[in-house]
Amino acid sequence: MIRRIDRIATELPPPSEPDPAGAAAVQELMGGRFGEMSTFLNYTFQSFNFRNRQGARPFYDLVANIAAEEFGHVELVAAAINTMLTGATPTANGRTRAPKASLAPLKGVGNPHHFLAGGQGALPQNSQGRPWNGDYIFSSGDLVEDLTHNFFLETGARNNKLKVWEMVEHPAARALTGYLLVRGGVHQVAYARAIERLTGADLMKLFPTPRIPTEKIPECKPHIQRGDHLRLYRFSPKDYLELSAVFNGPHPETGEDLVVVDEAPEGVPAHDLPSQPAVFAPDYAPEEIAEIAEKLRVKAGLSKSPTGEVANGRSPATKSRASKARATARKKTPAKR
Amino acid sequence: MIRRIDRIATELPPPSEPDPAGAAAVQELMGGRFGEMSTFLNYTFQSFNFRNRQGARPFYDLVANIAAEEFGHVELVAAAINTMLTGATPTANGRTRAPKASLAPLKGVGNPHHFLAGGQGALPQNSQGRPWNGDYIFSSGDLVEDLTHNFFLETGARNNKLKVWEMVEHPAARALTGYLLVRGGVHQVAYARAIERLTGADLMKLFPTPRIPTEKIPECKPHIQRGDHLRLYRFSPKDYLELSAVFNGPHPETGEDLVVVDEAPEGVPAHDLPSQPAVFAPDYAPEEIAEIAEKLRVKAGLSKSPTGEVANGRSPATKSRASKARATARKKTPAKR
Amino acid sequence: MIRRIDRIATELPPPSEPDPAGAAAVQELMGGRFGEMSTFLNYTFQSFNFRNRQGARPFYDLVANIAAEEFGHVELVAAAINTMLTGATPTANGRTRAPKASLAPLKGVGNPHHFLAGGQGALPQNSQGRPWNGDYIFSSGDLVEDLTHNFFLETGARNNKLKVWEMVEHPAARALTGYLLVRGGVHQVAYARAIERLTGADLMKLFPTPRIPTEKIPECKPHIQRGDHLRLYRFSPKDYLELSAVFNGPHPETGEDLVVVDEAPEGVPAHDLPSQPAVFAPDYAPEEIAEIAEKLRVKAGLSKSPTGEVANGRSPATKSRASKARATARKKTPAKR
Amino acid sequence: MIRRIDRIATELPPPSEPDPAGAAAVQELMGGRFGEMSTFLNYTFQSFNFRNRQGARPFYDLVANIAAEEFGHVELVAAAINTMLTGATPTANGRTRAPKASLAPLKGVGNPHHFLAGGQGALPQNSQGRPWNGDYIFSSGDLVEDLTHNFFLETGARNNKLKVWEMVEHPAARALTGYLLVRGGVHQVAYARAIERLTGADLMKLFPTPRIPTEKIPECKPHIQRGDHLRLYRFSPKDYLELSAVFNGPHPETGEDLVVVDEAPEGVPAHDLPSQPAVFAPDYAPEEIAEIAEKLRVKAGLSKSPTGEVANGRSPATKSRASKARATARKKTPAKR
Amino acid sequence: MIRRIDRIATELPPPSEPDPAGAAAVQELMGGRFGEMSTFLNYTFQSFNFRNRQGARPFYDLVANIAAEEFGHVELVAAAINTMLTGATPTANGRTRAPKASLAPLKGVGNPHHFLAGGQGALPQNSQGRPWNGDYIFSSGDLVEDLTHNFFLETGARNNKLKVWEMVEHPAARALTGYLLVRGGVHQVAYARAIERLTGADLMKLFPTPRIPTEKIPECKPHIQRGDHLRLYRFSPKDYLELSAVFNGPHPETGEDLVVVDEAPEGVPAHDLPSQPAVFAPDYAPEEIAEIAEKLRVKAGLSKSPTGEVANGRSPATKSRASKARATARKKTPAKR
Amino acid sequence: MIRRIDRIATELPPPSEPDPAGAAAVQELMGGRFGEMSTFLNYTFQSFNFRNRQGARPFYDLVANIAAEEFGHVELVAAAINTMLTGATPTANGRTRAPKASLAPLKGVGNPHHFLAGGQGALPQNSQGRPWNGDYIFSSGDLVEDLTHNFFLETGARNNKLKVWEMVEHPAARALTGYLLVRGGVHQVAYARAIERLTGADLMKLFPTPRIPTEKIPECKPHIQRGDHLRLYRFSPKDYLELSAVFNGPHPETGEDLVVVDEAPEGVPAHDLPSQPAVFAPDYAPEEIAEIAEKLRVKAGLSKSPTGEVANGRSPATKSRASKARATARKKTPAKR
Repeated sequence: MIRRIDRIATELPPPSEPDPAGAAAVQELMGGRFGEMSTFLNYTFQSFNFRNRQGARPFYDLVANIAAEEFGHVELVAAAINTMLTGATPTANGRTRAPKASLAPLKGVGNPHHFLAGGQGALPQNSQGRPWNGDYIFSSGDLVEDLTHNFFLETGARNNKLKVWEMVEHPAARALTGYLLVRGGVHQVAYARAIERLTGADLMKLFPTPRIPTEKIPECKPHIQRGDHLRLYRFSPKDYLELSAVFNGPHPETGEDLVVVDEAPEGVPAHDLPSQPAVFAPDYAPEEIAEIAEKLRVKAGLSKSPTGEVANGRSPATKSRASKARATARKKTPAKR
Repeated sequence: MIRRIDRIATELPPPSEPDPAGAAAVQELMGGRFGEMSTFLNYTFQSFNFRNRQGARPFYDLVANIAAEEFGHVELVAAAINTMLTGATPTANGRTRAPKASLAPLKGVGNPHHFLAGGQGALPQNSQGRPWNGDYIFSSGDLVEDLTHNFFLETGARNNKLKVWEMVEHPAARALTGYLLVRGGVHQVAYARAIERLTGADLMKLFPTPRIPTEKIPECKPHIQRGDHLRLYRFSPKDYLELSAVFNGPHPETGEDLVVVDEAPEGVPAHDLPSQPAVFAPDYAPEEIAEIAEKLRVKAGLSKSPTGEVANGRSPATKSRASKARATARKKTPAKR
Repeated sequence: MIRRIDRIATELPPPSEPDPAGAAAVQELMGGRFGEMSTFLNYTFQSFNFRNRQGARPFYDLVANIAAEEFGHVELVAAAINTMLTGATPTANGRTRAPKASLAPLKGVGNPHHFLAGGQGALPQNSQGRPWNGDYIFSSGDLVEDLTHNFFLETGARNNKLKVWEMVEHPAARALTGYLLVRGGVHQVAYARAIERLTGADLMKLFPTPRIPTEKIPECKPHIQRGDHLRLYRFSPKDYLELSAVFNGPHPETGEDLVVVDEAPEGVPAHDLPSQPAVFAPDYAPEEIAEIAEKLRVKAGLSKSPTGEVANGRSPATKSRASKARATARKKTPAKR
Repeated sequence: MIRRIDRIATELPPPSEPDPAGAAAVQELMGGRFGEMSTFLNYTFQSFNFRNRQGARPFYDLVANIAAEEFGHVELVAAAINTMLTGATPTANGRTRAPKASLAPLKGVGNPHHFLAGGQGALPQNSQGRPWNGDYIFSSGDLVEDLTHNFFLETGARNNKLKVWEMVEHPAARALTGYLLVRGGVHQVAYARAIERLTGADLMKLFPTPRIPTEKIPECKPHIQRGDHLRLYRFSPKDYLELSAVFNGPHPETGEDLVVVDEAPEGVPAHDLPSQPAVFAPDYAPEEIAEIAEKLRVKAGLSKSPTGEVANGRSPATKSRASKARATARKKTPAKR
Repeated sequence: MIRRIDRIATELPPPSEPDPAGAAAVQELMGGRFGEMSTFLNYTFQSFNFRNRQGARPFYDLVANIAAEEFGHVELVAAAINTMLTGATPTANGRTRAPKASLAPLKGVGNPHHFLAGGQGALPQNSQGRPWNGDYIFSSGDLVEDLTHNFFLETGARNNKLKVWEMVEHPAARALTGYLLVRGGVHQVAYARAIERLTGADLMKLFPTPRIPTEKIPECKPHIQRGDHLRLYRFSPKDYLELSAVFNGPHPETGEDLVVVDEAPEGVPAHDLPSQPAVFAPDYAPEEIAEIAEKLRVKAGLSKSPTGEVANGRSPATKSRASKARATARKKTPAKR
Repeated sequence: MIRRIDRIATELPPPSEPDPAGAAAVQELMGGRFGEMSTFLNYTFQSFNFRNRQGARPFYDLVANIAAEEFGHVELVAAAINTMLTGATPTANGRTRAPKASLAPLKGVGNPHHFLAGGQGALPQNSQGRPWNGDYIFSSGDLVEDLTHNFFLETGARNNKLKVWEMVEHPAARALTGYLLVRGGVHQVAYARAIERLTGADLMKLFPTPRIPTEKIPECKPHIQRGDHLRLYRFSPKDYLELSAVFNGPHPETGEDLVVVDEAPEGVPAHDLPSQPAVFAPDYAPEEIAEIAEKLRVKAGLSKSPTGEVANGRSPATKSRASKARATARKKTPAKR
């Protein structure tokens, strides 16, 4: 089971100049064979299918815990794509919503499903518009093989991230790839070390692959300076306690000590991306939904204003209202299991 | 982001008579168009792509929060399949591991990938062995449409669960479908109510679809008696506070009041399913991994015994050891973000 | 545009002993690369895309008209599969509908989607459970090539039909394949002749392929005796008048004259296949739908009894009622375009 | 079975400025998940698989009859795409046919299969060039579910049509989407009402979805003014007589009475789109085919001139010749079944 | 370019008891993600796409040369499957060919395409009947990554071969897997060493994976005894001369020296598998083809008897005739490039 | 089995102006339904699955031998694509390798996988970026049908080659299509003649299809002048001796005699395409691999310089060194099978 936190893993810039062609390319990091859906769902299935967990607990904990972080990476790729698509259609509602040829400038640009199927939103597809599929999951049950796969998967993922970095200059794409390169690197190291612990094979000598030093990527530097290239966070309040049995020793690129951090990163609130009424997201007339929402809140005894935390949110007042709503909500709880 | 809890949503029976043909059928609830991968990833993508979240907060919270519960349903389907496949190959290691024709009795039985590709583990495939794919995700960004889709998705899912219940009598499959029918029913109600709140359309009159009353399914009864057909749990420590603005009013089948529960269910520990060395899961000689694991733990200053909690675990002593390990692990934490 | 006639192309036997494994095999004739969806949709797309129709009218008419017949073949394959699946679950409603393990005997038998996804109904899939897809359509626009493709397609289709005949002995499958072999043969001849008319190449010498004489198949004989192996029917009240410019001369197997028949065959009413409440088709409690239907008819000024013609229908009284309903319905027609 | 009429559902403009990128986008309405192949084949399969038709006759008639209209929509989308692709390669035959780099300006433009695979013709693919496939069909056999699906399908289809309208300004695309929005709206209403009749749920309150009023689309207006948003046509000479038992009452947007029209619309002749010899459609030297065709007609005792009716056809003389040919053809009919 | 030799890589037993269910399982080694189509086409594409070949010649030679051997493995898997399917339909021609229900016993057994689509022949599909596809190819161009992939691919392939060995006891399957395990092991070693040479990483410590010692498999023993686990053959008359720069040093399991053999193995003639007229392979009446073939040979000045070498061939007389035919054929050669 | 020759079938020009959009189009000839992967693998599978080879030897030899030539065509398409992609990213290593936005100009251009997934290399995909798959293989086992398919396949392939010729003017694409049109024409003739020999049907009258005379394509002329449109080469040192029993008589377009050539063409060395470090092909720092390679050669007793033959190779000195290396290599050969 999971608990969900309404925050994203790292800061992304707010929407700026839209980049639909760039967003189409970034999809490779979402639904490509080596995209984040693949890392998330590979490790997740491997953890679900893990036999004799107690006997191999440090390895189970490692795979299950990295899976949890990968959810946040899928979320982050989506946030970057959504940011890059924001503003690609006119947003000054009153005058620009349909019936206008609002999508005409996007004919032949980027992934047509961003506009025709979705609401300028991320898709479970790769950079060619092909859907992610279950054949991208490898879960043999053989621990050494699964770990070998995972190491290869992270290597292919690093390749793709570097190339997306080279192709897409949009600030959201750069913030995304800079972060993912550093965190993906930690997972690559983790799987290499796990194989080393089981077999003695020194895969650390394969670092970095591709051979460009991570620190050369400008957007990686702040994360490296913060030490995030060394840390494996534990994404669970109480479980996966044996990570440090595997994840330890020196980092292959820098020689610094690897570190298990006993708490997951707090993350940051996401930007509340504006409506795009030309594609009916979330509606042809979004303001009507907002009115309904307010009424529903009031009727349910919640605060009149929305409670969620967003990067482009309002004053602390909002937050105190949110706290109050929370208190109210708690009182309503009639039963627990 | 998520936090992961190493527990499953409800109790499943321990492995008994294996049922590979049944496990192949249960795959429909995993990777079928209406399987749990679909419910989980549909709501997850919709929440990622949700525009103007503050303006439509109660609806955003609803979709994002149900997504979180669905992760646990994917996990539960996997656990049921793994339980049903346990013992399908000989497990008395010393004498039965390869080279023996250990898989000969499974030739032509069930999904061949359960044995040839995986390690007697769940697959991201449907009952025909076809992989789940991203075309099963609908995320138009139009709130009313997405909710209409979700209502339809839950209806199709209910159909599939009922039929799997009718086809597969293995106790793990029955425990699974009984639970999922009740919880899926809550989500069906939630989406119907959300549409009602937005448009006034009374979809509650479509309940139940298929028209068989849920309470007629014996394995649903305990969950109904506990009131789980009325409760929407909040799967987040601090977020998604506005569920009650949408999820309220009478249940369409029973007339009882719907309830938002402010905490996620605790869940139960999963069974640690035994090794299946005939398929090298987790190894041809799993005992060697256990030895390595123990040494690694000791070397890392953790407890000698494994710390994880499992249904078929050891004495309370184990638990106290686990607590100690946890304490130790915490001390090691050098930095937080 | 089309007009639809609620009749099927030839008589099929009523449901008898169900044959789910046979139904799974017959799916090859539905959704296989050479199945009837392929013949129907290939010719349909070719006719839609036909350029310079006036200049090549006899060939356009030929392709467009055969497409129309193929719709009826898709329908017939569906009817055969549905017949074969009827009774595979218990039909004595009161006692056997869910919650009973009504599908347990079908675990591991045939195509699981016949039961888990569908309501014991035909699927757009092949004998392996893989969906038909648009890659099976060839529409190059080059007339000679498209005709060459069509000839090859009919040849592959004949191969598949013969093998399904050999594999599946259920009377519905045999009636189906006997009919399709004869009608497919006519289309094969038509395309061969069309190529001959355009290029002079004598493809008639390729008959029959596979080389088994059609008349050796017992279920083909009645259709041959009726002369149906020689006739190309015109499936349009007013159009496709130039068929006879291409379809003429001797039949390659028998030497008899080919004939264009200026009217489509009348067809026969289909059997109204009974409800299968175990799979909720058309409902868990079908009798309630019947009640609603009757009320709706009465309220709309139609006859109390259903009007449609079915093979297992009621007395002439029904028919006269039907006529009356028709008269009533006509009066209601307020406008025509 | 069907009868085919060589006319299209509504007028499209003749070819003008070609728009290959627009044609690629319009493919979403052909082979997309919510395209016309999906509406046509979903309802068709549901009608084939319908059990207990007599018991649920009004609903069977509704689904089967709407399926018949949808064939004409697939045809219309094809005609629009073909119109938009006409002229994209040089058509002045003598000088421009291969070997010339006639396709060079199309490199990297639109869907490459429009030129490399097809003859500037419609494809069974979506806007991304992915083939339509059978997974897009839902035919559960459960009547309420199938209708719920159909309502959702029409909703998704409306979304896609509106967005294609916004993206593609080519007059053929606009004529197409204007017409389809109105007719699709009728089907959406029909399924909503059918669900209401069976369950009491008032889905009419979901209209319109997306929430943009249909009358705001200029190309919809003429169809609305003619009343086509209220009419369900009966696409059969004798069958599907019980439509009015379901399709009645007020229209959800306008409050006007819904109407069953007892005859299908007459339609209009399609434009005979010119040859595109650069892609060999229908030939490298199409004039040779025309010569052959004429000879074949004469030899078969038909008129010297082609008989088919096309929008860009010749004088009334042509028509009288057509009538004569028809008479001739009829005389040849030697047998009926 | 290639030259083709009409021999297979190792001896397979002649057809015996057919095993259609086993043949369906062996398909995993053909068209599965880790099947021989994957190894062959991965290395082939990597060699095609290899940049700066001269600069990385030993590695180019290694990949290109192993690709060549893999063709023979694809061929061998096909031969094994064909052997296992031989006799599954009656072969006593006169009495058993269609129209007989010759395929009835195969309904629901194995892969239906073995019978309905193919002529009891191998398919480009996996054990679930899903086609091999290009997504199984990895060709990043980054040498270290491609080699890491290849090592992982061979590891997954070893897993699948071992499990097929355990599942299928048919002598052809056992002969196949025994041989492939030994030869695949050589390739696994070759890629590990190549990575070691480039990076220093000691992947040899990962051997064997899965951890079952190869020598435990009885059918591997003869190949190991012959030394085939140590040899990399050069599959080219003149090229790929630098294999020994990479492939050298001790074998990770036995410590013996690895060896480059400067000539490809001679192979052995394949069995000429008998006709299966029930599926029209190669014809309904194969004897007629034989007559035609003889006439064509005589007319072309070749020997009256067939010239090819097969395992179940005729006396040396045949061979001398073959030599004569060869001489004749050579004389006809009028030109060389 | 095969032997591999490190040469390509015909000369291609060296890299010049890159053409990524053109390369994306040429992919149709690689991984399209009618691309060279299809011709190669269709004939290969048909030869593997050929039953009663001795009885139908001339036909077996024909199919198996053409398969061997097709490998070289796949290779040639790859070489052309790779040539066209060379230089699309900056190659002046020192200054242009990452981290630079080296791929920014390629955003939205051509097939994104050429850059994001591959290393500016050919893909097993079509012009839409969809992977080749096994459904493109037809191997019914029925000889007449398989040959009919092959004739149709070559016809479709000719269509695609002509259109790629018209679309892509890059010299490598033109050299490629000119060659393939001539060689594909030979195969088309061969299959037509084979069908004629078996059935008497005169498919020669279908030539050419599409009807544009081959000699009109400028890049075809040199091959025609050399007589390559008449020759079937025997791609085997000793086997496939009965080609001339089928491949004989007059060419359908020119009337000249068809000829079997008893040896395969020598081919020409390929260009050694330069590194593209922006995509890490073969490395971020390719010069380091070259150093390692040299050391490995020396250590293994091979020449210091690379031995392979490439079109842009060095002086004869290189060649003599190559010969020496060969001698050395041979001496090392310790064992043969």
